[in-house]
Amino acid sequence: MKIVANWNYPTDIRVGRGRVEELADACRSLGISNPLLVTDRGLANMAITRAARETLSDGGLSHVLFADVDPNPNELNLEAGIAAFRNGDHDGVIAFGGGSGIDLGKCIALMVGQTRPVWDFTESDDGWKQADADAIVPIISVPTTAGTGAEVRRSSMITNSVTHGKTAIFHPKLMPSVVICDPELTVGMPKSITAGTGMVAFSHCLEAYCSPVYHPMGQGIAIEGMRLVKEYLPRAYRDSMDLEARLNMMSAGIMGAIAIQKGLGAIHVLSHQIGAMYNTHHGTTNAVLMPMVLRFNQKAVERKIEKLAGYLEIPGGFEGFHGFLLAFRADLAIPQSLSEMSISNDHLEDIAAQAMANPMAAGNPVKLTLDNTIELLESCF
Amino acid sequence: MKIVANWNYPTDIRVGRGRVEELADACRSLGISNPLLVTDRGLANMAITRAARETLSDGGLSHVLFADVDPNPNELNLEAGIAAFRNGDHDGVIAFGGGSGIDLGKCIALMVGQTRPVWDFTESDDGWKQADADAIVPIISVPTTAGTGAEVRRSSMITNSVTHGKTAIFHPKLMPSVVICDPELTVGMPKSITAGTGMVAFSHCLEAYCSPVYHPMGQGIAIEGMRLVKEYLPRAYRDSMDLEARLNMMSAGIMGAIAIQKGLGAIHVLSHQIGAMYNTHHGTTNAVLMPMVLRFNQKAVERKIEKLAGYLEIPGGFEGFHGFLLAFRADLAIPQSLSEMSISNDHLEDIAAQAMANPMAAGNPVKLTLDNTIELLESCF
Repeated sequence: MKIVANWNYPTDIRVGRGRVEELADACRSLGISNPLLVTDRGLANMAITRAARETLSDGGLSHVLFADVDPNPNELNLEAGIAAFRNGDHDGVIAFGGGSGIDLGKCIALMVGQTRPVWDFTESDDGWKQADADAIVPIISVPTTAGTGAEVRRSSMITNSVTHGKTAIFHPKLMPSVVICDPELTVGMPKSITAGTGMVAFSHCLEAYCSPVYHPMGQGIAIEGMRLVKEYLPRAYRDSMDLEARLNMMSAGIMGAIAIQKGLGAIHVLSHQIGAMYNTHHGTTNAVLMPMVLRFNQKAVERKIEKLAGYLEIPGGFEGFHGFLLAFRADLAIPQSLSEMSISNDHLEDIAAQAMANPMAAGNPVKLTLDNTIELLESCF
Repeated sequence: MKIVANWNYPTDIRVGRGRVEELADACRSLGISNPLLVTDRGLANMAITRAARETLSDGGLSHVLFADVDPNPNELNLEAGIAAFRNGDHDGVIAFGGGSGIDLGKCIALMVGQTRPVWDFTESDDGWKQADADAIVPIISVPTTAGTGAEVRRSSMITNSVTHGKTAIFHPKLMPSVVICDPELTVGMPKSITAGTGMVAFSHCLEAYCSPVYHPMGQGIAIEGMRLVKEYLPRAYRDSMDLEARLNMMSAGIMGAIAIQKGLGAIHVLSHQIGAMYNTHHGTTNAVLMPMVLRFNQKAVERKIEKLAGYLEIPGGFEGFHGFLLAFRADLAIPQSLSEMSISNDHLEDIAAQAMANPMAAGNPVKLTLDNTIELLESCF
């Protein structure tokens, strides 16, 4: 036996319809009296954003809106955000929105008190330990989508405006101190985003569940997260006003982001690489790869999947679960193959080689080699 | 729909064989240079305690052992511990042991900087908010049993030395900042304690799972916690040196204590009352009551139990799970009824009436009334 594990769980999570009204209280609980509210340009003038700002004013808090945030936020957005924070003499950040607003908001809170460049603060080689932790200001996150779990994660993705390369900035204190999940903020999501971000949550849970890492809390959270997606994503997809389904998808997104402490595998390694090369949607790409990666991992995960299918009440064990995945994504109008995503199969060796170089590749239940990874990719066309 | 929830998760949990050697590092990570190590008299001179103390000395940390702790620690133990802490000019607590050492250690850390009496700091009426949170010193917990989860909980049970009444002292900062779970510390547990504390973990998970409260992370953790107990408690019971089983039972104990954020029900309400009246072992009493309470709740939890049985690979749905419980506890030499525990059925009305007064009673899936609670108790003889 060689079980060694370190476990951490977030944070103060407040779930429920209308709870965005607690925003001023949440600020005060963290000693924030003048927050900078960071969101993206698209959200800046929407009704949900105006309503959130009103709850701050009604609660007696001054604040400023900063919305100069690109879809893939970069270091120029970050510099502008830091300047806005300093000019307004703010004392905390509300990171509001989809992934871009939340990722940039968290990074502004990290960087307002640092002297080193943001690119130093990565998880690899413990670069983040060079940050002055005491200079990081408190963060409240308010998600307006459901799936990626950026609202509870300890990293932010920042794009280099020159090279277009993406870097995951990491710090334990990037995890927001308070998370407010109000399903009324997510009803405006387009159908395809509901499906794609929902499948991010499912793929987080499935890969965490299949990971061989010892993390029983992550395993349990992954199981129940998949049950929520199975039950509620079709409902949220059909009826954008189904607030019970929306709320459960917010829970599933958070649970996926927590469960991946346990590990990820080939779905995420390959999806990351394909996304970098073809700019595809992460959740959709994950969903396309999912049944083929499951088949690829069959011999290592078959017994586990049988148990999971038992809980999800899917008859037929492993094969039943595989068939469920195919039908589930078809009902969400997700493409059945990479060909249907208009991706060519000209660069499979490149994709496989770069995937092998990703440290995450080592976590896949079946060992990835260049040859079997190319075969796996071929099976996805 | 009316889903409103607040979720919090602990803490820095370090799991693995031999990890008690990280004790000095853990102290330093919390700024502790001179801890008071609190444990009970029985453990004070055992080899595992001496080894833990040596790792502190080897790590260059001075410390003092305080072991004047009764099996049900009281306010006199607490006063003596506070005096020892002040005399030694300590700056943190290592709460080491079974429930009594951990509960008292946590309470010493709470009380060294307070002016109000300990009895003020309860969860009801937010009494704990009267405590000076900044005066609480950091706590590291090191469990030597597996089951109750005292090592991650935000409460300590303290007995009044005069009235013999027990009070749950509560504060969010009673949750230890670092938990070290080293299965080598638990191999000395007697068989009956292994079984009884293991069943505490199972009953925490089962009642949390059955609770109607919306807490999907708690639900998932409960499911996987029960899988661990089903798989590893019989092994730990048969072979006290089975370290893999011991470690998994430590995980299950922590998971049960976290899952009960979701709620508890009739098992715990009745077991608490019976324990107060007859001084029975909590885990054993829980295990005796469990199948009858499950039957009592059948109509509210049947569908949920079918899903659970699917994950645990127990055939036969609800009835299959009920039969599994009976066989499982028989294999652990747990009594089959309250009669077998030498409890008389003369005071069932008293027990039921007092149980009804417990606020926890409201969380049971089927509403408890005086009449149906008496009937439930009668079915346990």
